[in-house]
Amino acid sequence: MNNRLFRFSGGVRGAWAVTGMRAISGEALPPAARVDILSGEPAAAGPGEKWVLRGVTSNERYVTSAERRELVSKQAALGRPEATHGALIPIRKNAEWWSLSQDERRAILEDRSRHIKTGLRYLPAIARRLHHCRDLGASEPFDFLTLFDYAEADAAAFDDLVGELRASEEWRYVEREVDIRLLRDGQN
Amino acid sequence: MNNRLFRFSGGVRGAWAVTGMRAISGEALPPAARVDILSGEPAAAGPGEKWVLRGVTSNERYVTSAERRELVSKQAALGRPEATHGALIPIRKNAEWWSLSQDERRAILEDRSRHIKTGLRYLPAIARRLHHCRDLGASEPFDFLTLFDYAEADAAAFDDLVGELRASEEWRYVEREVDIRLLRDGQN
Repeated sequence: MNNRLFRFSGGVRGAWAVTGMRAISGEALPPAARVDILSGEPAAAGPGEKWVLRGVTSNERYVTSAERRELVSKQAALGRPEATHGALIPIRKNAEWWSLSQDERRAILEDRSRHIKTGLRYLPAIARRLHHCRDLGASEPFDFLTLFDYAEADAAAFDDLVGELRASEEWRYVEREVDIRLLRDGQN
Repeated sequence: MNNRLFRFSGGVRGAWAVTGMRAISGEALPPAARVDILSGEPAAAGPGEKWVLRGVTSNERYVTSAERRELVSKQAALGRPEATHGALIPIRKNAEWWSLSQDERRAILEDRSRHIKTGLRYLPAIARRLHHCRDLGASEPFDFLTLFDYAEADAAAFDDLVGELRASEEWRYVEREVDIRLLRDGQN
């Protein structure tokens, strides 16, 4: 098993309670009460499982070395005790996006949409981990899964962050997006 | 199943006879008499199978739009009737490579190693298809599988191409490479 593989299971188990699920573009996901996040992939579906999404963390695709120095100096890791709020946002981009060359995608993502610079403004409050799904051997319904966590006091800032990104040119290439809000409520 | 997934099976079956297998860096692969190339992944290993490598074709990681125009105008697809010679070259790059940012990897791959420009000089004689393995859900022994085909008259040119690439700065990051030479001999 690839040790960078994560499995997100929507159902009745897991440390995160679902407080909202909304299809931003394209088809929704079936409702689930909780999300369980596991490293690796068990062979069988758990009881009550409504959906499973899988993704691998990987090398950076767009960030330059200067941007990375800034990111690394500011960003926090997931799992801070105060980060009781979270979001799982699966996204699929359209065929036109994937047919663009590397410089064309970078120009849209950063030069014109300021994706990296926008994210930097919300550090360290909003922590994130990006997972890639498009090059898994199985056909996956999304290209990316991003998991975020933040303190309750930063919930409005998180709404601002996703709002800014969704208004950008890059998001014209997003053909499916589901916004799943989470609360770490001490149960599982 | 991901429809960009290919499965390369080394054993006693397949359209390509193995004429040579050589470990260039790191561990060798077990000897095999033939290589079978299948789209997708059957559930079970075939009889006589010595190894299986899997990879997905994907979006371009480094090529710019100008380079792509030149590539598209010159390159041939795999499978020309005269392309009876082939090579399958699995490669794994080291952790240092994967920890570099996008601009650092591009600078090594093209600005300093001329990987794309070198490949262009051998078009259309040498056709190639690149498969990615690093972000498959299963742990794979290589990061890339490149399949090449060419006419017998271009066999020496192919040796020149791989020789140039192996002498480049980029190849300092290659920690495992196996060179498997193939002949489409009309059997299977």
